[in-house]
Amino acid sequence: MSSKVRAAIIGSTGYGGVELIRLLAAHPQVAITSVISSSSAGEPIAAGYPHLQEIRTELLDGIDPAEMKSKADVVFLATPAGVASGLVPQLLEQGLKVIDVSGDFRLKSPALYEQWYKKASAEQAYLDRAVYGLAEVFGSEVQGQELISNPGCYPTATLLGLVPAVAAGWIDPKSIIVDAKSGVSGAGRGASLGTHYSELNENFKAYKVNQHQHIPEIEQVLARVAGTEVTVTFTTHLVPMTRGIMSTIYASVEGQRSVQDFIGLYREYYEGRQFVRIRSEGQWPGTKEVYGSNYCDIGFAVDERTGRATIISVIDNLVKGAAGQAIQNLNLMMGWEEGLGLQFVPVYP
Amino acid sequence: MSSKVRAAIIGSTGYGGVELIRLLAAHPQVAITSVISSSSAGEPIAAGYPHLQEIRTELLDGIDPAEMKSKADVVFLATPAGVASGLVPQLLEQGLKVIDVSGDFRLKSPALYEQWYKKASAEQAYLDRAVYGLAEVFGSEVQGQELISNPGCYPTATLLGLVPAVAAGWIDPKSIIVDAKSGVSGAGRGASLGTHYSELNENFKAYKVNQHQHIPEIEQVLARVAGTEVTVTFTTHLVPMTRGIMSTIYASVEGQRSVQDFIGLYREYYEGRQFVRIRSEGQWPGTKEVYGSNYCDIGFAVDERTGRATIISVIDNLVKGAAGQAIQNLNLMMGWEEGLGLQFVPVYP
Amino acid sequence: MSSKVRAAIIGSTGYGGVELIRLLAAHPQVAITSVISSSSAGEPIAAGYPHLQEIRTELLDGIDPAEMKSKADVVFLATPAGVASGLVPQLLEQGLKVIDVSGDFRLKSPALYEQWYKKASAEQAYLDRAVYGLAEVFGSEVQGQELISNPGCYPTATLLGLVPAVAAGWIDPKSIIVDAKSGVSGAGRGASLGTHYSELNENFKAYKVNQHQHIPEIEQVLARVAGTEVTVTFTTHLVPMTRGIMSTIYASVEGQRSVQDFIGLYREYYEGRQFVRIRSEGQWPGTKEVYGSNYCDIGFAVDERTGRATIISVIDNLVKGAAGQAIQNLNLMMGWEEGLGLQFVPVYP
Amino acid sequence: MSSKVRAAIIGSTGYGGVELIRLLAAHPQVAITSVISSSSAGEPIAAGYPHLQEIRTELLDGIDPAEMKSKADVVFLATPAGVASGLVPQLLEQGLKVIDVSGDFRLKSPALYEQWYKKASAEQAYLDRAVYGLAEVFGSEVQGQELISNPGCYPTATLLGLVPAVAAGWIDPKSIIVDAKSGVSGAGRGASLGTHYSELNENFKAYKVNQHQHIPEIEQVLARVAGTEVTVTFTTHLVPMTRGIMSTIYASVEGQRSVQDFIGLYREYYEGRQFVRIRSEGQWPGTKEVYGSNYCDIGFAVDERTGRATIISVIDNLVKGAAGQAIQNLNLMMGWEEGLGLQFVPVYP
Repeated sequence: MSSKVRAAIIGSTGYGGVELIRLLAAHPQVAITSVISSSSAGEPIAAGYPHLQEIRTELLDGIDPAEMKSKADVVFLATPAGVASGLVPQLLEQGLKVIDVSGDFRLKSPALYEQWYKKASAEQAYLDRAVYGLAEVFGSEVQGQELISNPGCYPTATLLGLVPAVAAGWIDPKSIIVDAKSGVSGAGRGASLGTHYSELNENFKAYKVNQHQHIPEIEQVLARVAGTEVTVTFTTHLVPMTRGIMSTIYASVEGQRSVQDFIGLYREYYEGRQFVRIRSEGQWPGTKEVYGSNYCDIGFAVDERTGRATIISVIDNLVKGAAGQAIQNLNLMMGWEEGLGLQFVPVYP
Repeated sequence: MSSKVRAAIIGSTGYGGVELIRLLAAHPQVAITSVISSSSAGEPIAAGYPHLQEIRTELLDGIDPAEMKSKADVVFLATPAGVASGLVPQLLEQGLKVIDVSGDFRLKSPALYEQWYKKASAEQAYLDRAVYGLAEVFGSEVQGQELISNPGCYPTATLLGLVPAVAAGWIDPKSIIVDAKSGVSGAGRGASLGTHYSELNENFKAYKVNQHQHIPEIEQVLARVAGTEVTVTFTTHLVPMTRGIMSTIYASVEGQRSVQDFIGLYREYYEGRQFVRIRSEGQWPGTKEVYGSNYCDIGFAVDERTGRATIISVIDNLVKGAAGQAIQNLNLMMGWEEGLGLQFVPVYP
Repeated sequence: MSSKVRAAIIGSTGYGGVELIRLLAAHPQVAITSVISSSSAGEPIAAGYPHLQEIRTELLDGIDPAEMKSKADVVFLATPAGVASGLVPQLLEQGLKVIDVSGDFRLKSPALYEQWYKKASAEQAYLDRAVYGLAEVFGSEVQGQELISNPGCYPTATLLGLVPAVAAGWIDPKSIIVDAKSGVSGAGRGASLGTHYSELNENFKAYKVNQHQHIPEIEQVLARVAGTEVTVTFTTHLVPMTRGIMSTIYASVEGQRSVQDFIGLYREYYEGRQFVRIRSEGQWPGTKEVYGSNYCDIGFAVDERTGRATIISVIDNLVKGAAGQAIQNLNLMMGWEEGLGLQFVPVYP
Repeated sequence: MSSKVRAAIIGSTGYGGVELIRLLAAHPQVAITSVISSSSAGEPIAAGYPHLQEIRTELLDGIDPAEMKSKADVVFLATPAGVASGLVPQLLEQGLKVIDVSGDFRLKSPALYEQWYKKASAEQAYLDRAVYGLAEVFGSEVQGQELISNPGCYPTATLLGLVPAVAAGWIDPKSIIVDAKSGVSGAGRGASLGTHYSELNENFKAYKVNQHQHIPEIEQVLARVAGTEVTVTFTTHLVPMTRGIMSTIYASVEGQRSVQDFIGLYREYYEGRQFVRIRSEGQWPGTKEVYGSNYCDIGFAVDERTGRATIISVIDNLVKGAAGQAIQNLNLMMGWEEGLGLQFVPVYP
């Protein structure tokens, strides 16, 4: 184990944290050396997550950023919004590599962060240092970096579905409407009426319409790709299921483009990227087809009647939308093969 | 019981048929006198639907249109596409009132029907006679009629969410995009991989993108309301739940209109219509909030950033989207109070 | 409405309370005149339960037992354990009729209550006055009474499945094992990890094994029926669904009894009781077949290989297991027809 | 790849078959060389299982037992009942190793097989050759064998929960009652009303009471362990979820044994067996805690009031109850480490 990279996970008792534990357990080059929870330090993690019994038996550590270097080479932050911004400076100072799975370093503008997150932003200097790790789009920028900001779950599904078409100028950026749907695990483990079984089962509901904090993240990336400001209409819904995100994306097509044209464009764009799978004409990906895996599957329709394209993009929100992409970013940072330890076949059915 | 209207249900062993049985059992002016199934004639309906044991004990009748008049005053057709078109002429000839819950009489153009349904259309003369029973919009045309075409489930949710704004000219009809989601009962009781539990549970998937037969039905009504041809982008998804439809509707707002403006417009439009409930600002209806009831609940957002309105409309697909609205149409046909026998409180949770 | 019985519901914002509202809305002889919640007094109930928008528009009352007589003739208590015991004396003193849907008056022994509920018991005098309203077994004792203790959800399903066989001496009371399963709504609306969607969905788990407070309630009734002390093994499980209870009951058969014998015995015992439906041989009731209704459906197997009977009994926990049986008890108290206002067809599918 | 063991899967398009594909993809010593389906030969498997797109791209083979040796060293049979019995002789004759995941070789008596499976049995000679691969109980018999009969899903959960106590004489074998519950994937991929989403969702139901073909399998093993004939009462239920089995087992305790005694007995019995996890007192395993993994988790209660033990045992029916245990048996056959390629952390939540 001495030759493995030592990884610490801060925020281990959230769903993102335990998913990191699940996935890193299968990684050949990484050893988890510290599993950290401010709320449950001193307890075994299996006390709250019995599925980890006999798998992780050490006690949860408390957060002690100053001592982290002795325990780890890389730190994953799976913390609530507003926590990572305070921890990252200390971690970087010690020479640790940091992958932030929270949203604290995604927006480059502190004002924008504060407007959408309603919390104090990280400092500009650190926002500038953070590399946005949308692996299949900006992966080449990740290698050798120290601070990676892992994309949000909705932005991952949405941007992987949009970037090639926006970059190619095939769709009108002003026309983009994203109807997004997520399983309930995206809301975290906190107990509230909003995560109560009897309220959500046999129910389909919208939330945070036009107000989700992932909106500026999507717009920031699209603006960079399009070379012009982009504003999207974006709606989020809760689906009565645990895992999975689908973004159904609508946009006006520029010029004459068939479904086959779109499929060709995307296959070319994602050439060699093992975790994006472009579907054939008439095949619509379902969320279960990527369950438990790091895949993002994308399908297309073009409606000649309306001149609009419909792009459907699905991911597992806890894997490609969080822990899986974080590990993919670790692989890229370290110069390892992108898919190392991540080649899970989706769990189906 | 002699003074009650006698009702026959053809297609009783589908989900629409058994829902008619459930709802009519509570109707003070109607007695079910014949429950008809071509496939299961001679059996008790409880053999296939044990929840009806001791509730409906008579045997299922076969279809005998020529004898129907002796058994019934009104006939509900809950048959698969392509069946009602053949039965209706005989039923009308006998002086029966007919409410067709299938789609055979919704489109006024036989060519359009054949294009989208891939089946032979009803004759033009009968299409012309059929009144489209979207109760809160065209209800005044229903009274005293003989042949009512009950709207589809998706069109009901979608049109109730769109008509007031389109009629008022508040949204651009060319900009309409409908992202619709349905519970699985909408696919009927037929067993296939597409209705298989293990394939649908923990799964969210799109189907028939741009190809659903409810598209021309929605466009036909919007054209009538807008006074101009309307083409919509319309996507259907399956939600892992049994009942419920949500239409999330996007459109560009004409002029400056706030959420409160929309709420006011819709409250005025639906004034006195007990089954449409307009939500207050910031309240998004979930499908469960209308479960088992005849309500259609509608909520609004207006995004100043993009100039688009988001309208969310939910129904129970088997009630307001099928059997409930059919009974509402019966009430209107007969000149009874619109809500007679339909005032179910939603089943929650 | 002046001639209707006025009903107040205390604990209206729990699931039992809102189910009383749903069911009483359909009752021809009852008007809800006060909807009471200590935690949400002064708010409209639809603020927390949007499905009730436009159905119940008055504000929630606070609890004021001394003033209750001016508002109501009968009071339903749908309160957490330990609350009703304090309210009932005042309510009875005012001459109100009381139906307690909580467990405070079910056990006749204060010591037993305190052992299993871990709370202070109601006074013995009131326990003695309370009539245990298992309608199909003790319904004849309910008429004209003032204080009815409504049975628990598990005891209702279990006892209706056991009483005829125990009363007839057909099964050995010492051999009874009950494997019970409940939908999540039985755990109430309180938010906790134990009711969290992502923890319960795609999960089946046991809880409170041998420790559920409904055990002494079941034993108390069986002892009364058997004429001897009875101890049962009783396990409770959570099913990933909202509504429904199944008790799968195992017991050794005394003498030679076939399935048909059991069916005959139960049909005779429940002769004329509309809410118990005995299934034919080989038919096993599913919980959905009683969904939203007041039915209890019961099926049987007898295994000659082991000499044991398997009895399967299902109810909707919020209807027959709570609000529905409470209204059935009201009907019996008042000398009305037992099924008045309760003849809902199960919601299927 | 030349040094890897070559594996063929017959019956690849069933749920057991695709689960073998998922798990074997992670096995370091096995290469899948032929994926066989009689019904879909010539098609890519991803046509029916899009989650396998780009993971398995070769076309499905037809069954050609005589040619199998050129393609594979070991054959997994994931076929419907009655198919493997016909294929196995040919496969063994070619010197192939065979692991039968169907039930054709589990019962040692052809008469018993024909009574419970209603099909022609395999020949006695082959039944005699087949080693019953309940890995943690009979694993030592597996090494070096040619024909392994992989246990059924219910028997695996049930027997792992029962064998140590029966072997120790701590429970009365005549008193055993097993209340078993399964997710729907256990019913396979065939479409029928019995696997229809709208029929199963929000439903909990029993099936095949006293008649499940896994009953004689359980009894055969218990008889061997107990040294005397054993007859069990065994009920199966369908849970509205996809994966997971729980057996809730009841039995009378012989002598004075505490929960701690049981925990100690089982921990000792399963010492060194990584896939059985014994829970601490008061901890009841839920099915989700083993989801997607090869674990069997077991918890205990002892009720002094009734003298009965309650043993709760959970597995993932497709992993430990089928494909996972089959690979575990391959590992044992080959003399490899038992857990090779199987150390998946459960997918939670």
